[in-house]
Amino acid sequence: MKSPVSQILKTLHERYASLKEGNVADYIPDLAKADPDLFGICIATQDGHLYEVGDTRHKFTIQSISKALSYGLALEDRGEEHVLSRIGVEPSGDAFNAISLKPGTGAPFNPMINAGAIATCGQILKADGQTRIERITHYLSQCAGGQLQIDQDVYRSESETGHRNRAIGWMLRNFGIIDEDPREIVETYFQQCSLLVTCADLAVMGATLANQGVNPLTGERAIAHGYVDNVLGVMASCGMYDWSGEWLYRVGLPAKSGVGGGILAVLPGQLGIGVFSPPLDAQGNSVRAIRVCMDLARELALHMFNPSAVPPPALRRSYNASQVNSRRRLPARAFRALRRYGDRIRVMELQGPLLFSTFEPVIRVLIKQAPYCQYVILNFSYVFSIDEVCLRMLREMREQLAANGVTLVFCHTGRVGKSLAASGMEKSALFASEDAALEFCENEVLAEVMKDHSLVPPPVSLTGCALFVNCDEAELKFLDERMGSKNFAAGETIIQTGTSADELYILTSGSVEVRLRLPEDRHQRLDVFSSGMSFGELAFLDGSPRSADIVAVAPVQCRVISRPFFEELGSRFPGLKAKILNEIALQLCDRLRQANIEISALRS
Amino acid sequence: MKSPVSQILKTLHERYASLKEGNVADYIPDLAKADPDLFGICIATQDGHLYEVGDTRHKFTIQSISKALSYGLALEDRGEEHVLSRIGVEPSGDAFNAISLKPGTGAPFNPMINAGAIATCGQILKADGQTRIERITHYLSQCAGGQLQIDQDVYRSESETGHRNRAIGWMLRNFGIIDEDPREIVETYFQQCSLLVTCADLAVMGATLANQGVNPLTGERAIAHGYVDNVLGVMASCGMYDWSGEWLYRVGLPAKSGVGGGILAVLPGQLGIGVFSPPLDAQGNSVRAIRVCMDLARELALHMFNPSAVPPPALRRSYNASQVNSRRRLPARAFRALRRYGDRIRVMELQGPLLFSTFEPVIRVLIKQAPYCQYVILNFSYVFSIDEVCLRMLREMREQLAANGVTLVFCHTGRVGKSLAASGMEKSALFASEDAALEFCENEVLAEVMKDHSLVPPPVSLTGCALFVNCDEAELKFLDERMGSKNFAAGETIIQTGTSADELYILTSGSVEVRLRLPEDRHQRLDVFSSGMSFGELAFLDGSPRSADIVAVAPVQCRVISRPFFEELGSRFPGLKAKILNEIALQLCDRLRQANIEISALRS
Repeated sequence: MKSPVSQILKTLHERYASLKEGNVADYIPDLAKADPDLFGICIATQDGHLYEVGDTRHKFTIQSISKALSYGLALEDRGEEHVLSRIGVEPSGDAFNAISLKPGTGAPFNPMINAGAIATCGQILKADGQTRIERITHYLSQCAGGQLQIDQDVYRSESETGHRNRAIGWMLRNFGIIDEDPREIVETYFQQCSLLVTCADLAVMGATLANQGVNPLTGERAIAHGYVDNVLGVMASCGMYDWSGEWLYRVGLPAKSGVGGGILAVLPGQLGIGVFSPPLDAQGNSVRAIRVCMDLARELALHMFNPSAVPPPALRRSYNASQVNSRRRLPARAFRALRRYGDRIRVMELQGPLLFSTFEPVIRVLIKQAPYCQYVILNFSYVFSIDEVCLRMLREMREQLAANGVTLVFCHTGRVGKSLAASGMEKSALFASEDAALEFCENEVLAEVMKDHSLVPPPVSLTGCALFVNCDEAELKFLDERMGSKNFAAGETIIQTGTSADELYILTSGSVEVRLRLPEDRHQRLDVFSSGMSFGELAFLDGSPRSADIVAVAPVQCRVISRPFFEELGSRFPGLKAKILNEIALQLCDRLRQANIEISALRS
Repeated sequence: MKSPVSQILKTLHERYASLKEGNVADYIPDLAKADPDLFGICIATQDGHLYEVGDTRHKFTIQSISKALSYGLALEDRGEEHVLSRIGVEPSGDAFNAISLKPGTGAPFNPMINAGAIATCGQILKADGQTRIERITHYLSQCAGGQLQIDQDVYRSESETGHRNRAIGWMLRNFGIIDEDPREIVETYFQQCSLLVTCADLAVMGATLANQGVNPLTGERAIAHGYVDNVLGVMASCGMYDWSGEWLYRVGLPAKSGVGGGILAVLPGQLGIGVFSPPLDAQGNSVRAIRVCMDLARELALHMFNPSAVPPPALRRSYNASQVNSRRRLPARAFRALRRYGDRIRVMELQGPLLFSTFEPVIRVLIKQAPYCQYVILNFSYVFSIDEVCLRMLREMREQLAANGVTLVFCHTGRVGKSLAASGMEKSALFASEDAALEFCENEVLAEVMKDHSLVPPPVSLTGCALFVNCDEAELKFLDERMGSKNFAAGETIIQTGTSADELYILTSGSVEVRLRLPEDRHQRLDVFSSGMSFGELAFLDGSPRSADIVAVAPVQCRVISRPFFEELGSRFPGLKAKILNEIALQLCDRLRQANIEISALRS
């Protein structure tokens, strides 16, 4: 099967391969040798998948596209305010090679024109025994996810003919924008422009910018997080020479072009695009690449103002503990109490990235629900990320809710647990699972509404076992004599997944957990039973293998009904068997009703 | 309780209320009267909620902020290419009142400078007997969600002193950018600038732009969908006079300021911001408003390049029909067949907005799954929207999958059903619910893997009823004599929600549906039973009221076990009762296992 995405790129490539407009750059003699028919298109997704068509692996020199990335390195070396004091960020309205220095300060208008890019080179530090060009090469290589090389022929050609850029260098030195001998800096600039890249490299660099500075191929951070927005900002306002305004208007993607024929475009948070075709228009932008980007933006609706490309509101669903309960099995009275008072515990499942605009509606719901709740559990299962803004608002809401008698706790905070902890959220408010959080809140509510509610039920005699509730004394005596007994230490496994099921257990003391085995030695608690309850009915009745582990969580004493004994009951004491089966059926009814309530809450 | 959002605005307001920098505009005499202490901040969310602090209801003149919106009206009147041929979209690098016309054409650089805005007025049509200013006033009023008025004093003051703008008007007439007498057009421009707005109006206008042109207060479309990106584009590149580049770099929100002291800023797809404070800086931007926007953008992480503000990948969860089944109850053999072959049916739950970058990963999964499936059900329950790009890709994938023997169907397409239908998706591929889609796919798979599988099971005698499978002939004869019989017509309600449960039904012919009542006379199908099965056990056993309706879907013949008869069985024929209870318990086990599988698939 062929992906429609590949098909779209193929159609685009066919549409413009025959377009013969524009001329290969000739102001640098070596660039004039480029084959005007070369043409490649590549999209890199945020998870590092590449869609490619045409000459996406042909190497060409990066030229001005390097300006955007080395600006990032300068910001990392010197900080935003220092760099801004030397190089502006205003579009100049002039051509790329205009000298365009601001009257008075002599600061270049922006880092995307040659003057600004040379000044940017001057800001990059020599560090760790590396020259500037070594550091730039390393930085750009990390963005591309592979080692880049300089095309020495193009570099020599640029250096031999780059008199105008040398003039700019001296002018910058004159204004004190460059503090050192400008000759080395201008050479660094020529070398940087002569780095060889492929169309696929450009797409990956774009995806790295889209991905907050982390290269999606290598998984490594290539650009410091804090400066990605700055780089995208100057690309958006100044990236396409004096066609930048119209580019932003028509294509709507931060982008940078180079006279080597490349364009790198970014859809922030989503994807990177690389297009390569040497013939250029009068503004110095690749003719085919411009057309491809315009069509891609329109046909794939990639415009960065596309308002449908925003995350959904964070509230995914909401229910209370009269609908969904923790997995442990409660005595009937406690269970009924929760049906009645469970609405004091509200569970809110959140989703997506938590940022101001997605989280703000959650705040409104919390404020509205506060008068009716005692506990709110925020389930973070579907949350990808939480930003500082939301952490702060969350902390504030938690304090305010506490002052109003509402306890806010969190569960499944896996992906954002560290951030929550770092923001000062008490460990006691973080629960591993919704189950654990619900159990905690249920216990608090039960302790309040049932004065004599004991969380650890005391040991019971057979009279106290639900299964035998309708048995008379003679029957109880008979059962007591004939049923086996088994004891287990805390932590011991009573039933193992996959074994055959020949026994039904009646707990007279202690409690057990039903655990589903998960990969990596983890497990999920499905159920908890305590004294007076029975377990193991399902497999015992239908003869299928045990579907979960059952483990003693406190020292356990059990009575056991074996299969032969149960069969004997049927033939010799059918009335007693009917009584026991009736109780088993009643318990199954209970569990099925509970499961149906849970399914309908989960489906809502 | 106080919202942390209100608290943030309050803190910001306190932070800058005492800032005394800047001067009230005085080049229009009437503006100089403004009170420099006035200061309001308002945020409007996408669902129309307003957060306000300070003088958010004080009226002032909109001034240049009107330029952004009237540009939208001009685009609607004339179309993009026509307007672009008269007015550019490049930042000029010059001050707002510079004449800045392009050499050669005389076209203003962009619609945000005075020359461009006057040219924009000239593009607006007189229509439906309305003057230009009436149409502009109506348009801006729709964006604000309330009727705007012109401040006649300010208008007169602007008109009396606006000689430079008159010069611009005549210059535009000279170049043919304006075709008519420029005097009326310049007056229209003065009137437009003199429209009175409040800070809250600006926030709502911003939210309207954020909201694809639909005013979130009124729910009505104020700006044609296709032109919102264009308006935001020029705001982003040229909205803040000759500080636009730095604004985009530091604040990162499309915005427009006016010399009345207002700033309107937009976080596309998310929210609108209005700030008002009359004292201006040298570029003509409100000093306090700039500071507030910079702090808001930083403190609430609103920068439009914020890469965490992107929608999540569209695949929410995925399971197959060996884990989750349709609600109808199948004969045991068919049920087992689905446990075995159910993985031929894959359900994929999608979420969020479907756009290129969220949907593209779904395509990869579909292509990967195709060799292992015969049916794929896309559940759209959590999908907000689908764009044209995804509709096209979806259609293509459907055709390709069909060619590979995989049928793609859809369910819960409520919000996007119209779009799917309009894109040519066959009605037969759209199912109202996952249940219905699953049942269809299950039937197809069952028909293939079970040659003799009949979808409508034939009538059965008591021997064929699961409940009596272990009864001997004498017991069956006894039951046949003693049990009642009831017949129901198709559509008849057999059990009504809330009634008491004194009977257990055994279906010997026909089939019934268990239905949960929903508001507005709707219902949800919970289960389907057919001949040979029993229903009504839960309430019959535990004595609670019926929790759902049971309705005959085909003419039904039932046998009935009444409570007195069941009790009689216990005392007189306990062995028979034990046999029946054993089968009831087995059926409950089955249903509970199924429910647990479903819960764990839903929770995954």
